[in-house]
Amino acid sequence: MRVAVLGVGLIGGSVALAARRQDGVHVTGWDHDPAALDRATSAGVLDAAVAAIGDARDIDVWVVAVPLAALADTVLAACAAAGEAAIVTDVGSTKHALVSASPAACYIGGHPLAGAETAGVEHARADLFDGATWYLTPQTDSPGVLYERLHRFVASLGATPVAIDAAAHDRLMAAVSHLPHVLANVLVQQAALALGGETLPATGPSFRDATRVAGANPELWAQIYAANGEALGEQLDATIRRLQDVRARLDDLQDWQQDAAQRRRALLEVGLTGGPEQELRVAVPNRPGVVADIALTLGHAGINISDMSLAPSTDRRTGVVGLWVASADAARARDLITAKDLLVT
Amino acid sequence: MRVAVLGVGLIGGSVALAARRQDGVHVTGWDHDPAALDRATSAGVLDAAVAAIGDARDIDVWVVAVPLAALADTVLAACAAAGEAAIVTDVGSTKHALVSASPAACYIGGHPLAGAETAGVEHARADLFDGATWYLTPQTDSPGVLYERLHRFVASLGATPVAIDAAAHDRLMAAVSHLPHVLANVLVQQAALALGGETLPATGPSFRDATRVAGANPELWAQIYAANGEALGEQLDATIRRLQDVRARLDDLQDWQQDAAQRRRALLEVGLTGGPEQELRVAVPNRPGVVADIALTLGHAGINISDMSLAPSTDRRTGVVGLWVASADAARARDLITAKDLLVT
Repeated sequence: MRVAVLGVGLIGGSVALAARRQDGVHVTGWDHDPAALDRATSAGVLDAAVAAIGDARDIDVWVVAVPLAALADTVLAACAAAGEAAIVTDVGSTKHALVSASPAACYIGGHPLAGAETAGVEHARADLFDGATWYLTPQTDSPGVLYERLHRFVASLGATPVAIDAAAHDRLMAAVSHLPHVLANVLVQQAALALGGETLPATGPSFRDATRVAGANPELWAQIYAANGEALGEQLDATIRRLQDVRARLDDLQDWQQDAAQRRRALLEVGLTGGPEQELRVAVPNRPGVVADIALTLGHAGINISDMSLAPSTDRRTGVVGLWVASADAARARDLITAKDLLVT
Repeated sequence: MRVAVLGVGLIGGSVALAARRQDGVHVTGWDHDPAALDRATSAGVLDAAVAAIGDARDIDVWVVAVPLAALADTVLAACAAAGEAAIVTDVGSTKHALVSASPAACYIGGHPLAGAETAGVEHARADLFDGATWYLTPQTDSPGVLYERLHRFVASLGATPVAIDAAAHDRLMAAVSHLPHVLANVLVQQAALALGGETLPATGPSFRDATRVAGANPELWAQIYAANGEALGEQLDATIRRLQDVRARLDDLQDWQQDAAQRRRALLEVGLTGGPEQELRVAVPNRPGVVADIALTLGHAGINISDMSLAPSTDRRTGVVGLWVASADAARARDLITAKDLLVT
């Protein structure tokens, strides 16, 4: 099978490396930036490099991994260069506008939920997509043979292909990813204003957690907000309506708070990180070493901690450690921790 | 010195225990609920218990630690029972309405930033307030002699008294605590709706972090929202305006995102948990034991981790650990971690 990767950064390079794990796969790379293409060639992620998209020959799968702003044009160029039986896909984080603008006869959208803090082909990894959800957005008139080939290709990279309507995909991403980023920004802006001359008090970890993603990579996120403007706009409208409703009954919010508690439990228990998980909350003395002791004990028992939060009390003498572990491991983890005379709730 | 504690739960009980660490302090307790008073007596936190507020005699400092809804009436009852040189204070989490409704001649508001996941006098601790900020809200006509006594009393409990205008206090709490709780609730409600029939994808830790406090203790938080309705309402109005502004320019948000990045850094670097801290971000293989290894190494070196977040990549093979340590320890922590061939950014 012959694969073309257009745009050879972290994601494109990782697609190339993942595809080449299999016998008989040949990957041709192209990049708008000749220097980036040179780096990819030097890093050994490609079998061949071409200076123009049209120079890539006999390609079965075209993967467009260029920046969001260049996606639509590059998809069109790939479709123009692609033979009749070839499939063109992309890895952009929003889908509806791109899918609407691209020819269904050759293109099906994609979005792998993978990435890293790092960027650049130097950090590309063959296993980047192992176990990752990879959304595919076929249209009703997408040729079945092309979808089947794309599905098989994505699975061969180690990912789990999940078909989703393009508009539903964008709504979902707007709600669980883009809106949280917007609200985190608003929170830091409001707090900075409210502080005035006061020093920020020790409010525990809730403010820090809520604003952890505030101001993330401004260049990338400005592109994401713009690309998903329609779905994010709807989320913002709904958020504004909810806040107006809350505003109107600030003295009657117990049921509303209860509803949020139930919804959060339901959301997280279906497995926010890819499988059913449970949170164990452990009351601990907050001395150096106690976190290590818990983590080490679970590590020795082969129990992976997928998420951890340490909420120290203000006096730093005690705190609560929240640990997320696979549901299958939860009972065993609880036993190991309570055996240390620590209270698990 | 003679202290009266009205309401003997976790906070009231801890005030009693903290006060009684000093010689010559006598603490009398009262509670609306005779059973709670019995439990406090059994737990040994009090020197004496009275069945009626008026039965407490020759009290120098009255500390009202009843639920929010009963604060105003109990403060008035304490003022009625208090002698001329006695000070009445409280520990409620909002201040402006209570301060406005209470006589400045006998009462000065207070709010210790301390507490715990647990409730009830059984969990009261003498060191609960050690190192905690304890806001005091004197009015312009508060007698200086009473403020001085209260300041000294709060410091004697181990806390750091900080004077703040009652309205400014409520604005600050609304911005850094109450608004984050409201927005976390909205996020889970929006996500639940957007999901429809889809399974929640592995979106990394940002959604979980942003919604960690969603649905927290509905009974307590409904009271807090109501008690701080004025300041929280203003925060909600400002939030709605900001969201409408963002909504109107979704394709032009790079400067806005950049602004949020700078503000977050500025806020957190002044020390969200009580002192200057820095975040170290460590790229790690996400195998059992690696978190323990880092924590153990820092623990052995006497470096306390005040906050930690583990963000696994979707494939669970790598991740980024964010560690918050005191700025004074940051360089040493960085050296210890890089010595393990781990990348610190």
